[in-house]
Amino acid sequence: MEINLRNLHSPADIKNLNAASLSLLSEELRAILLKKLSAHGGHVGPNLGVVEATVALHYVFDAPKDKLVFDVSHQSYVHKMLTGRIDSFLDPAKYDDVTGYTCPRESDYDLFEVGHTSTSISLATGLAKARDLQGGKENVVAFIGDASLGGGEALEGLDFGPTLGTNFIVVLNDNQMSIAENHGALYQHLAELRDSNGTAPNNIFKALGYEYIYVREGNNIEELIKAFKGAKDADHAVLIHLNTMKGMGLPCAETNKEAFHFHAPFDLKSGAPLVPDNSEDYADMFTRHMLFRMQEDEKVVTLTAGTPGAFGFTPERRKAAGKQFVDVGICEQDAVAMAAGLAKGNCRPVFGVVATFIQRAYDQLSHDVAINNLPAVFVEFYGGATGGMTDMTHLGFFDIAMISNIPNIMYLAPASAEEYISMVDWAIDQTEHPVVIRTPGGEVIHSERPVDMNFNCYDVVEEGNEVAIIAAGQFLHTASEAATILKSKGLTPTVINPRILSALDTDTLDTLRDYRLVITMEDGIIDGGFGQKVAAYLGDAPVRVKCLGLRKEFLDRFNIAETLKANSLTAEQVAEIALK
Amino acid sequence: MEINLRNLHSPADIKNLNAASLSLLSEELRAILLKKLSAHGGHVGPNLGVVEATVALHYVFDAPKDKLVFDVSHQSYVHKMLTGRIDSFLDPAKYDDVTGYTCPRESDYDLFEVGHTSTSISLATGLAKARDLQGGKENVVAFIGDASLGGGEALEGLDFGPTLGTNFIVVLNDNQMSIAENHGALYQHLAELRDSNGTAPNNIFKALGYEYIYVREGNNIEELIKAFKGAKDADHAVLIHLNTMKGMGLPCAETNKEAFHFHAPFDLKSGAPLVPDNSEDYADMFTRHMLFRMQEDEKVVTLTAGTPGAFGFTPERRKAAGKQFVDVGICEQDAVAMAAGLAKGNCRPVFGVVATFIQRAYDQLSHDVAINNLPAVFVEFYGGATGGMTDMTHLGFFDIAMISNIPNIMYLAPASAEEYISMVDWAIDQTEHPVVIRTPGGEVIHSERPVDMNFNCYDVVEEGNEVAIIAAGQFLHTASEAATILKSKGLTPTVINPRILSALDTDTLDTLRDYRLVITMEDGIIDGGFGQKVAAYLGDAPVRVKCLGLRKEFLDRFNIAETLKANSLTAEQVAEIALK
Repeated sequence: MEINLRNLHSPADIKNLNAASLSLLSEELRAILLKKLSAHGGHVGPNLGVVEATVALHYVFDAPKDKLVFDVSHQSYVHKMLTGRIDSFLDPAKYDDVTGYTCPRESDYDLFEVGHTSTSISLATGLAKARDLQGGKENVVAFIGDASLGGGEALEGLDFGPTLGTNFIVVLNDNQMSIAENHGALYQHLAELRDSNGTAPNNIFKALGYEYIYVREGNNIEELIKAFKGAKDADHAVLIHLNTMKGMGLPCAETNKEAFHFHAPFDLKSGAPLVPDNSEDYADMFTRHMLFRMQEDEKVVTLTAGTPGAFGFTPERRKAAGKQFVDVGICEQDAVAMAAGLAKGNCRPVFGVVATFIQRAYDQLSHDVAINNLPAVFVEFYGGATGGMTDMTHLGFFDIAMISNIPNIMYLAPASAEEYISMVDWAIDQTEHPVVIRTPGGEVIHSERPVDMNFNCYDVVEEGNEVAIIAAGQFLHTASEAATILKSKGLTPTVINPRILSALDTDTLDTLRDYRLVITMEDGIIDGGFGQKVAAYLGDAPVRVKCLGLRKEFLDRFNIAETLKANSLTAEQVAEIALK
Repeated sequence: MEINLRNLHSPADIKNLNAASLSLLSEELRAILLKKLSAHGGHVGPNLGVVEATVALHYVFDAPKDKLVFDVSHQSYVHKMLTGRIDSFLDPAKYDDVTGYTCPRESDYDLFEVGHTSTSISLATGLAKARDLQGGKENVVAFIGDASLGGGEALEGLDFGPTLGTNFIVVLNDNQMSIAENHGALYQHLAELRDSNGTAPNNIFKALGYEYIYVREGNNIEELIKAFKGAKDADHAVLIHLNTMKGMGLPCAETNKEAFHFHAPFDLKSGAPLVPDNSEDYADMFTRHMLFRMQEDEKVVTLTAGTPGAFGFTPERRKAAGKQFVDVGICEQDAVAMAAGLAKGNCRPVFGVVATFIQRAYDQLSHDVAINNLPAVFVEFYGGATGGMTDMTHLGFFDIAMISNIPNIMYLAPASAEEYISMVDWAIDQTEHPVVIRTPGGEVIHSERPVDMNFNCYDVVEEGNEVAIIAAGQFLHTASEAATILKSKGLTPTVINPRILSALDTDTLDTLRDYRLVITMEDGIIDGGFGQKVAAYLGDAPVRVKCLGLRKEFLDRFNIAETLKANSLTAEQVAEIALK
């Protein structure tokens, strides 16, 4: 029996298929995936690897009654195809009707908006406990990748799950990869389990009380159905360990798993990107500089928590860095605390981290690093509205409010490439404080202005009067553009590059007390940010203060230019505010 | 050979003792501990349980060359006695010369200021990596309790440790207790290991690649020395599992381990507190109310992350709450994500949490709860400068800045007992948003003023003119006292209870635009807080704004009254500011 994919409205439509038909369906879904992924871009490897597993899940379990929680949910494309959203994969015009993650706004089959790793098991324990208290009988299933399993939150949930004493199913999608290669002792153990067909001694899942089921061919529909049926309606905790192939069905993704974890539109045959990007880029600049610094000094160490490629550390560059490059796996807490230990041990740690993920280590930043005032360095990428992360689960504009209010941490926002690299150098060389550096968003900006690493005073870039614009990071250039407009209208504003957002240069601010207006600009939410510190400090002065930044809200797949405009962050708007 | 304890200056002084003398020394140290603990208060059970282990550690390892990292470090009293600080245990006048945690300001034998759980292994990986890069040969030892081991950060570190491929020693102090009883599947596994004298199958530590050494009598000096010697200078990762007795040597602490985890001064014979505290208390009020709500509705669930007693859930009350009380162990991340799952599953979760520990779950609050806008409730205890937590590692006054800037979360600060319980009720009943409620600090305040749960508008408690005081939480009463002083001087200020700190009532604020002065008061750091939002909003108005709160700094063992005064938070000081 075959089905017309256009008529695939819900999992009910696949319940009567036999294994052969389900295999055929999987191949068709994979072909559709390949077409969309190559034309549109997206999470290539993760989705190609779980086509069969997703079909089998929906064949065996009865969603939405049974609860399926996808970890990260970047692998939920096939789930979306099977739950009423196949048009968004078949029709190019509808490609963007669905997000890249599970989304309750789209469908009742999607339980949570998620995008960070390692949350599914804990979320599922909550669903299971809620079921038990209300006398429900549905299955609760957490679907998690091997890389995500190494995160602390996942391990906490894994530890708690069996104590429920009721139905609780964890599907471990072991594709032997993180975004890059896996790191952590757990992965040696998973390899032993795979190599022994699930029979290796010291089974960590059995140690925690899970019934353990191993599926050697995790891309084989029949094996998957058998395993899922074996776990369905269990009255206890079961862990099903699937051995799957990341990128399956796309040769370039099967061989180059790291590059095809997530990929922009590409040629299906060659794997080459459709739009090569050769523009200059801060991450590349940072990485080259770190390689130079590490070569110069064996005590300089670059750390990542599973995202080396996000800041330019390709496999070749990691190899070049050797022992001075540490990937702890997707474990931001461990990375930050390890940085504290490295700093205490007289090394010079530099943790490169995606802005949305540093929030996974707030306590370590505060408790382990800041209280001890250890000189660890944190360089953030994809921060702000301009950083390029536009998915609701990956927003990078909350970090100023989160980090700059922790004592002892110096939060720096460079305005140009030259200032950026100078700050990285300065942060590595100093031994007084933890330092966070926000990599600027948008295109690389160069500046010939001499850089100054004295963070006790702001850099007054243009001296004027009546109105001052204090603009953080790359917004300095928006401020300079606004100044040009204003000068053409007879107003010469003072333009200031604060460079540090965690402290105030009160001497410079005092010179503005009798101005008519001070405008602050930052690429982050206004609430809790830099501008509000300025407003509060000048609260007893005659000068008016206007804080510009982003509204405190979770945006989803926003247009960067429109968002800047909606928040009065264009040069024209700033000039207009100054004139009012 | 015996030593005069007064001459115990460093671990070198015990290196020549034999096992019998070390046992005798341990008994003497325990007697001193008991005397100080009973007179002074402190972490009773944790320290009594590790006397022998600490003596053996310092006998075998060569600190400070060898690096000892204590998890939480609440069990480091004996370590302090052995490393030059015994006078602070012998002389009552010097009892307060040492903090209750490791403290690098006190001694080079102390590597980190710590007080939160689960950080030691990750910190130690940093020290070990730093050693390896610099060609060092010293031992690196993380000393961690069974309860702390269940935390995600500890599990991340445990996973990473063996991948170093060099000397890395974890001492697991298994005293079979958290503050309360342990929760999590890991503890069943540890019990199996103890019951089998370390030979149980599926050894989780062996699975991760550790050499595993079990010490059946963890309070026996000879066994401990043998185990530590077996691990010393290992060229790989070793985990030593000690079976110790929490509270050893104090019968009431041996039998009532939970009550004597931390205890105020007590009678050594009876265990009775020297100063009984029968004052009314918010935690007790909260717990009684939750028991009532849970009895009324099976969907109401109270959660804790290992600190049930911190908010009044005694063993009897936990028993009364039955399945509706969930302790996930010291796993705040899991607790917050589980709360998200419970809310999604139509339950009404209420997570009671110590303010300093909620920061361990920033990402879960933001990513799992707030993005999904799930109606989970978080009730914070010991928040603010007035909350009673005065150790540098346990400060509770950063939470407003941390939480109130996350979109969708309503952060509420009740000013009285009546408003507090009404807010808890309201938060449980509503289904629109996550809600955080800050339990007021200080003595319980009652109010007959009708409570209003419309958080779109502030509660204007006193109508006045010229000066407005917007005072959050229990500071409302300081504001009212200031108003009384001001009225006696001819100025009638407007006094406002904002009740919500995560949003502004702009209508009410607009009525203050032409006032002379607006004063904001909050029990948290000024930076990133509520007052700065008010200052920024009124930045374009003629009114001056003065934000009162705490400076952004890590205080240590501060005096609450003095700190309030140092930050201009007394009624007299507020009145003075208003008159200026």
